[in-house]
Amino acid sequence: MSDAAAAPATFVTPAALLAHWQGHRRLTRRVIEAFPEDQLFTFTLGGMRPFGEMAMELVSMAGPTVEGIATGEWASAFDRDPLPKAELLARWDAETARMNELWSRIPAERFHETMKAFGQWDGIVHDLVLYVIDNEVHHRGQGYVYLRALGMEPPPFYVRD
Amino acid sequence: MSDAAAAPATFVTPAALLAHWQGHRRLTRRVIEAFPEDQLFTFTLGGMRPFGEMAMELVSMAGPTVEGIATGEWASAFDRDPLPKAELLARWDAETARMNELWSRIPAERFHETMKAFGQWDGIVHDLVLYVIDNEVHHRGQGYVYLRALGMEPPPFYVRD
Repeated sequence: MSDAAAAPATFVTPAALLAHWQGHRRLTRRVIEAFPEDQLFTFTLGGMRPFGEMAMELVSMAGPTVEGIATGEWASAFDRDPLPKAELLARWDAETARMNELWSRIPAERFHETMKAFGQWDGIVHDLVLYVIDNEVHHRGQGYVYLRALGMEPPPFYVRD
Repeated sequence: MSDAAAAPATFVTPAALLAHWQGHRRLTRRVIEAFPEDQLFTFTLGGMRPFGEMAMELVSMAGPTVEGIATGEWASAFDRDPLPKAELLARWDAETARMNELWSRIPAERFHETMKAFGQWDGIVHDLVLYVIDNEVHHRGQGYVYLRALGMEPPPFYVRD
């Protein structure tokens, strides 16, 4: 089912999947924006990480994953230190542009090959990408609980533009 | 990018996407199982729904969405009343088998067509499916916060077997 045959059946094309992912990233950006600056790296529930730390994980995974898939070069160091919200959002936006450029260089057959992400995780490339997206949706859902617990209304889940 | 041309580039095949989805559903099932029976439909944070109510939403969306895509018949009524955990899990498992059977009947080109889900939401079929999966990951992430706040360790995110 992950065979790189000439014309495999298509659930979604690479271009549509990138559009879907960038829609998620626009929503996650709004969730970061919604946090009060003084709660982004401090507020927690249940002994979990603050949402800012999760967002630093997300922004350090997305672009470097696309870069690794496109070029075979996997980043080996990540800066996940807390940033002022404006700087985190600026880094987010820089990664958005970089991902679009890198994605366009990935040949479609690569999504069905196996790669070792970051020198550690073997997987079919489409699974590696879906994992990064799912990890973002998972942690963003946790950010929604944090915002609600702070008495704030999170941005609507279904708006992705 | 969502064109139904003869051999569109493939990010993921329908079979691999179903396998990915069922992996998520196995994890969500474990999260439901992890909740103490007396907290599943009662425990909340931030004024949000209890996780049991979210799980009833998830189990009433997944199978009926696949059914609608496969048959053109969209369910118009959903039973989302609270169930004892064992009955909720039994319903979950019944939907798992039904989804596998229905999915096998969907021609690949349909994923690139537009349908109106449940008589209400127009979308390209792959986007309708991804929305249902993402909604599950989103709410399951919220269930993780509830479990942590209850002092419990959630099942590992990356284990899907």
